[in-house]
Amino acid sequence: MPAPRESSRVRVTIIVRIRDGVLDPQGEAVRQALIDMGHGTVEDVRIGKVVEVILPSGPGLPELTREWCERLLANPVVERYEIVGIEPL
Amino acid sequence: MPAPRESSRVRVTIIVRIRDGVLDPQGEAVRQALIDMGHGTVEDVRIGKVVEVILPSGPGLPELTREWCERLLANPVVERYEIVGIEPL
Repeated sequence: MPAPRESSRVRVTIIVRIRDGVLDPQGEAVRQALIDMGHGTVEDVRIGKVVEVILPSGPGLPELTREWCERLLANPVVERYEIVGIEPL
Repeated sequence: MPAPRESSRVRVTIIVRIRDGVLDPQGEAVRQALIDMGHGTVEDVRIGKVVEVILPSGPGLPELTREWCERLLANPVVERYEIVGIEPL
């Protein structure tokens, strides 16, 4: 099996969700709309973000990704993030 | 193993992504910000939505979920959806 080329690329996938207990007005609007569409009971709707970053692979990607999440992608007071995957393309 | 109670609940998870080739201004802003944070090359950033719906389980949930996606959650011209999971809670 050949070693990965240095120029290979990866896709980093991050999900950012609103923390439990924090109000989600967009989710609440969707919940009401689903009820209005005629489905009886919809208990809760939460809406988060999926961030997909494509970049050249390199060392320290998990640490770099955590730094992105903490400094830019998620507001830790009201959001939590999950690094879902770092996959070669 | 007891049969599932009729009152049991499920979490439906849907991801809505902007179609390839369609401009994603929010993703482009994040791409620039990641570059400004000092990481050299960031090729592309795409930002989508994760929708999590909690409701009582019942028959026809996959069909119902597709109807929600097509009528409410995704704009098929510029977005595509993926039903990621329907899990009991």
